[in-house]
Amino acid sequence: MSFMTRCYFLPGRLQNLRYTPIAGFLYLLLMFPTDVLSQTIQIQRVSPAHWFTGFQRQSLQLLLYGPGIKGTKVRTTYPGVTVDRVQYTDNPNYIFADLTISPAAKPGMVTFQLSRIFPLTEKRANGSTVVNGGKEVTITLPYELKARTAKPKPVTSADFIYLIMPDRFADGDPSLDRVTGMADNETDRSNPFRRHGGDLRGVTRHLDYLADLGVTTLWLTPVLENDQPLTDENGTQRSSYHGYGITDHDHVDKRLGGDDAYKRLVDAAHGKGLKIIHDVVYNHMGLYHWLMKDLPSKDWLHAWPSYQNTSYRDQPLVDPYGAEIDRKISREGWFVPFMPDLNQQQPQVVNYLIQQALYAIETFGVDGFRVDSYFYNDPDFLNRLNEALFREFPGFFICGENWVNSVTNQAYFVRNRIQTSWKSNLPSAIDFQLYFATNDALNQAFGWNEGVQRWYQVLAQDLLYEDAFRNVVFLDNHDQNRFFSVVGEDLRKYKMGIAFLLTTRGIPQLYYGTEILMKNFKNPSDAEVRQDFPGGFPGDPADKFTEAGRSTVENEAFRYVRTLARYRRETPALQTGKLMQFVPQDGIYVYFRYDSAKTILVAINSNREEKGLATDRFAERMQGKTSGRDVLSGSIVSDLSHLKLPPLSATILELN
Amino acid sequence: MSFMTRCYFLPGRLQNLRYTPIAGFLYLLLMFPTDVLSQTIQIQRVSPAHWFTGFQRQSLQLLLYGPGIKGTKVRTTYPGVTVDRVQYTDNPNYIFADLTISPAAKPGMVTFQLSRIFPLTEKRANGSTVVNGGKEVTITLPYELKARTAKPKPVTSADFIYLIMPDRFADGDPSLDRVTGMADNETDRSNPFRRHGGDLRGVTRHLDYLADLGVTTLWLTPVLENDQPLTDENGTQRSSYHGYGITDHDHVDKRLGGDDAYKRLVDAAHGKGLKIIHDVVYNHMGLYHWLMKDLPSKDWLHAWPSYQNTSYRDQPLVDPYGAEIDRKISREGWFVPFMPDLNQQQPQVVNYLIQQALYAIETFGVDGFRVDSYFYNDPDFLNRLNEALFREFPGFFICGENWVNSVTNQAYFVRNRIQTSWKSNLPSAIDFQLYFATNDALNQAFGWNEGVQRWYQVLAQDLLYEDAFRNVVFLDNHDQNRFFSVVGEDLRKYKMGIAFLLTTRGIPQLYYGTEILMKNFKNPSDAEVRQDFPGGFPGDPADKFTEAGRSTVENEAFRYVRTLARYRRETPALQTGKLMQFVPQDGIYVYFRYDSAKTILVAINSNREEKGLATDRFAERMQGKTSGRDVLSGSIVSDLSHLKLPPLSATILELN
Repeated sequence: MSFMTRCYFLPGRLQNLRYTPIAGFLYLLLMFPTDVLSQTIQIQRVSPAHWFTGFQRQSLQLLLYGPGIKGTKVRTTYPGVTVDRVQYTDNPNYIFADLTISPAAKPGMVTFQLSRIFPLTEKRANGSTVVNGGKEVTITLPYELKARTAKPKPVTSADFIYLIMPDRFADGDPSLDRVTGMADNETDRSNPFRRHGGDLRGVTRHLDYLADLGVTTLWLTPVLENDQPLTDENGTQRSSYHGYGITDHDHVDKRLGGDDAYKRLVDAAHGKGLKIIHDVVYNHMGLYHWLMKDLPSKDWLHAWPSYQNTSYRDQPLVDPYGAEIDRKISREGWFVPFMPDLNQQQPQVVNYLIQQALYAIETFGVDGFRVDSYFYNDPDFLNRLNEALFREFPGFFICGENWVNSVTNQAYFVRNRIQTSWKSNLPSAIDFQLYFATNDALNQAFGWNEGVQRWYQVLAQDLLYEDAFRNVVFLDNHDQNRFFSVVGEDLRKYKMGIAFLLTTRGIPQLYYGTEILMKNFKNPSDAEVRQDFPGGFPGDPADKFTEAGRSTVENEAFRYVRTLARYRRETPALQTGKLMQFVPQDGIYVYFRYDSAKTILVAINSNREEKGLATDRFAERMQGKTSGRDVLSGSIVSDLSHLKLPPLSATILELN
Repeated sequence: MSFMTRCYFLPGRLQNLRYTPIAGFLYLLLMFPTDVLSQTIQIQRVSPAHWFTGFQRQSLQLLLYGPGIKGTKVRTTYPGVTVDRVQYTDNPNYIFADLTISPAAKPGMVTFQLSRIFPLTEKRANGSTVVNGGKEVTITLPYELKARTAKPKPVTSADFIYLIMPDRFADGDPSLDRVTGMADNETDRSNPFRRHGGDLRGVTRHLDYLADLGVTTLWLTPVLENDQPLTDENGTQRSSYHGYGITDHDHVDKRLGGDDAYKRLVDAAHGKGLKIIHDVVYNHMGLYHWLMKDLPSKDWLHAWPSYQNTSYRDQPLVDPYGAEIDRKISREGWFVPFMPDLNQQQPQVVNYLIQQALYAIETFGVDGFRVDSYFYNDPDFLNRLNEALFREFPGFFICGENWVNSVTNQAYFVRNRIQTSWKSNLPSAIDFQLYFATNDALNQAFGWNEGVQRWYQVLAQDLLYEDAFRNVVFLDNHDQNRFFSVVGEDLRKYKMGIAFLLTTRGIPQLYYGTEILMKNFKNPSDAEVRQDFPGGFPGDPADKFTEAGRSTVENEAFRYVRTLARYRRETPALQTGKLMQFVPQDGIYVYFRYDSAKTILVAINSNREEKGLATDRFAERMQGKTSGRDVLSGSIVSDLSHLKLPPLSATILELN
C-alpha cells in the first residue's frame, strides 16, 4: 500500500516549481508524451494514505495524484464502499473521488479499478503516427481500510502538560541525523535554524523522566513532515525545524523517525499513563508541501495581487465595527512568506483538512489537538472540523492558540458565555491572558492594578468562558521568552510562578527545560528559546535529565516542580476542586482550592520582605481549621491564625 | 403642606447624636414627658414630601416622623386612597404607612386622620398623679397628591452632555451665599472644601452659553440638600460642596436655590431644548442626614463590628471565584466614614429609595439619572429600582458610574451580552475603559497595544454590551485629572481628544471648563479639579463665558469644541450612524461614521510628524467618493486618494 501511494515522485527538475499557469503548462509538456507513450495510469499520491471503517462520517474524498489522470474513472466492488462521484479540477493531474464508506464496510484492502481511454495510434506508411480510435486501460489501486482503534483520553484539568520541540529535546536515533532525500538532510547543532537531531525515540526514551517529574501529558510541536530546505535559491531562510511548515500531511517526518516512531512513542506514553497532544496546523502548509508543487487548483490558497502578510490582528474578527478588508488580511494574509495560506472555503480543502485530522487521531492514536494560529482560520471551517472530531471522539480535547490581548478576545475564540452571531465550539483556550498576567505579577510593583493584582483581575473575568478550567495555563512556550529569564533569573520568583501554575485553575503546561532553569530571550530570534535540552544529545557535557548532571540550583528548581506536580497529581482538589480567591492586599495574593476532601491555601507574598498574614479574613474557606501541612516542606503548621510569609514566596498549605 | 412636614425640627441638643440604643433611650427620656404633657400628635417629617396620582406603582409607603408616634393609627377617606397597613419599628418615633393610590385617585389634598390613645391622668389628694383610663387624640395631616407632569426625554447618542458641579460654576444669586440654619452657611472661595457660592440660577443664566457651545444635555452633580458642616467636632473634614452627602432626599439644597430654583432651571433648559440628568446616590447618604440623627431602625445601615471601608473593588462581584467577605466589603463597606452605607435589603429602605427616585423625576421634571457608585449597591435592588422607573417612564435614561478596569467588568454592570446569573438592566455605562484608552492614546508611543491602538482595541470589545452607543464617553470629570493637564497642556493633543470624543460612538460628555482649557491634577485633593469657572462669580477678573474674556488659545479651544459639537448636533451620521474602524497603522487611527445620508472620515495622526495616508485600504467605506469637506476648516479636499495628516492632529472629512 505504501508503495503504491508513495513510490513515485515528481521529476527532480520540478521540485522547486510552484504552481502557476506556466508551470502547469510546462508540466503537461513534460509529462504527456511519457504518459501517452506508456499508455498506462500512474498514481503517485493517494491521500489520505489509508482510511478507517466505522466512522460516523461515511463520506471520504480520496485525492489521487498522477500525471494526466484527469478523466480517469474510479470503480470498486468492495462491499460497503461506493464511488459516488469523481471530480476533476483545472489541473489534469488530480482526481477527487467521493466515496461512501458504509457501516457495513469491513476492514481490508479495497481494490479500485481506475480506467481511462488511451488513443490507439497507427503508423502510416510515410512513418507518421495517427490516432485511430482508443483503447481502455484499467489499473488496480489497492487502498487499505483499517479498523478503528483510537481511544483518545481527553486532557483535563487533572493533567500536567509538558511541551517539547522534538528536534531540540533528545536525539534517540543518531541514524536519523542524516536522512537522504530530504531538502535539508544535515544536522548542525551550532546553527540555531538547522535540525539538531532530536527525534521521537529521544522523547520515548525520556518518558520515565517526565512521568517522574509529574507530567501526565506531552504536547509536541508538529511532527508531520517538514521537508523544507534551510534556505531557498535566493538564500532566504526557509528552515522548518519547528514543524510548522508541513510538507506532507500523511506522514511523520522521517528525521524524527517517521510514522512508526510516532506510533511507538504514543503507545509507550499510553503504557505509562501519559497522554499525547498532537499539534495541528490548518491555516497554512509549508511552501515545499508536495501539493504546492502542483496545486490541485489555484483556489486552494488565499491569493493576493501581490504578497500580503497577515496583520496578526484578531480584533477585526471580534470587533463589531471591524472592516471587511481587515478581516480578510487577518485571516487570508499569509503568516509568513513561506507558509502558504490555505483557503478553507474551498470544499476540497475543507475535506482534506477534516480527513487529515481524523486520520491523525486514528493512525497515531493521539489524545488531543493543539491547533496552531487558531483565529487565522476560517471560523465556520473551524467549527465544522471540531464538530467532525467530536462526532467521532466525544469529548475530544482541542486547545487553540489565540495569541490575543484581552479576556474578551480570548474568550471569543473558545466556548464562551457571550451572545455572538458566531459561536466558537473550541473547548480549550491557551491562556495568554494569564501568561501576560504572570509576567506582570512577578515583575511589577504591587499596585491598584499591578503586580499580583493582575493574576486576581484576569481570573475574575473567567465568567466569559464556558469553562475556564479547560484553559491551558503556561509560564512560557516555544514562542516566548524563557520564564527563568523573564523573572530575572530570580529563583524565588521562579518558584512563585511554578506554584501559581500548579495550583491555579486550568491545565498547567510547562515548556521543556523550564524545570532545569533553561533561559534566554527571543533575541536575536525565536531559536534562542528553543535550545537543546542538555544531555539529550550525544556528546553533551552534562546530562540534565539526571540529578547528577544538574547543578545544585537546577536540582532545587527541578525538585520544586516535581514536588508540586506530584502533589497535584494525587490531589483532586488542585485538579477539579473549586477556586476561591481573595482581593490581594499588601502585595499578598491568597486563594484556595478545595473540594469535599481537601482544602489547600495558597498565599503568594510578592513583597521583598517577610510579611505576616492574619487569616481571619478567609474564615469562609478556613472553616474553623486550625492546622495544616506545608506541601513544599512537609512541615506541620500548628497555628493557622497568623502566617509568616517569606519574601517573594508562595506558601502552600493543605489544611487539616 | 410644606409647613406641616417641615416645621418641626429636632431639639438642637440632638443634632449631633447618631442613633444608638443609648441615644434612643436618652431621646425617650427627653421627649416623652413633653409629649404626654402636650397630649397631642406631632409630625415633624413626612417623606416623600408629596406624591402623584397615576403611577403604575400603586403602593406608597409613607414615612412619618414625630416624637413617640409609634402606635398611632392612620386613616383616610380620600377617594382612591386606602391605608393598607401601618408598620412600626423599634424606634418609637416612626410610622410607615403602606398606602394604595388607586388609578381612581384624583390629584388633591388628602387628609389623613392620625389617632392615638393618651393616658388620662388624675391628681390624687396627696398630690401624686395616676393614670386612670385613656383618651383618644386625633389630628389631621394634609398630604398632597399632584398630577403627573414629567415627560422625560431619553438621553441618546444624539446628545452632548455637559457636566457641572453647581457650587463651582456660576453664582447667580448672591443672596444664597449665606443661608442661615445650614450647618455650613459660609462661602469662602479661597477654601477648596468650602462652598463657593455657585447655584442653580447661575446655571440657568448660562444656558445660552451652553446651547451656543453645542451642548444638548446638562448633568449636575447632586443638587439635593447636603447640610453637612465643614468639619465635625473633632476637626475632621465633612464638607460636602460636591453634593454626594445627601441630608434630605425630598429637597434641593437651599444654598443652590432650593426646589424652586431647580424646577426653574429644568423648565428653562427644556425651553431651550436641553435635557437634564439628575445625579442620584443610592449607596449612601450624608452622615448628617436627618434620618441619621434618629434612624428608623439600625438595619437601615450596613453595620460592622468596627468601621469598615469598602475596598472600592468590583472584582469580587464579577469574579466566579469571589469570596463572600470580599463581596460584602465591596458593597457594604462604607464609601468614606462620613457617608453611611444604606442597607438596600431592608424593605423600608428599598421603598424609600425607589419612591425618592420617582419623586425626583416627577417633582423636578428631570430627563435622566446618573447613578453614583453603581456597583456598590445591592444588585437586585438596582434592578428593582431601574425597573420601577422604566415602568413609569418607558425608555428612561440611566447611566451608572462603574469605575472599573476592564471591558468585561464594565459590561457586567450594564445591559450586556454575557450569560450571567445576575443580569443588570442598567441602560448606559459611563465608559471608563474608553477614558483610560484616551489617556493612553494621547500619551503613549504607538505600539502593538499602545497609543491609538488603545482606542481601537477597547472599541473592538464592544460586543460585550447590549448597546455601546448608549455608553457615556468622556475625557475627564469631577473625579479625574483635568484633560488639558493630562495631555501636557498640548493643544494639538487636546484637539485630538475632543475630536475623538465628538466623533466616536456613544454619548459624549464634557466636564465644565474643559472647553476653556481649565487644568489641574487631583493634587493635593479632588478639589483642585473642581475650581470655579472664571467669570461665573462676582469679582472674577475675567469672564471666560465670553469671547472677550478668553485668551486667544482659550478661544481656539472653545471654537474647536463648538465647531465640532454643532456639526455633530446637525449630523445624524455622527449621532446614530454606524462606526467602522480600521486597524491602526503607522501611528494613524482611521474610522468612519456613516449612515445612508453621509459618510464622515476621521483620521487621527498620533505621530509628531506629518504623515501621508493612502486611502485605498478604506475603499469599502469610501465607496468611490473622491472629494470631501474638512469639517474643521470648511475647506474642500478635492483628492481623497492620498491625505496629508499634520503632526498630532485629527482630520475630519465629510465625504461628497
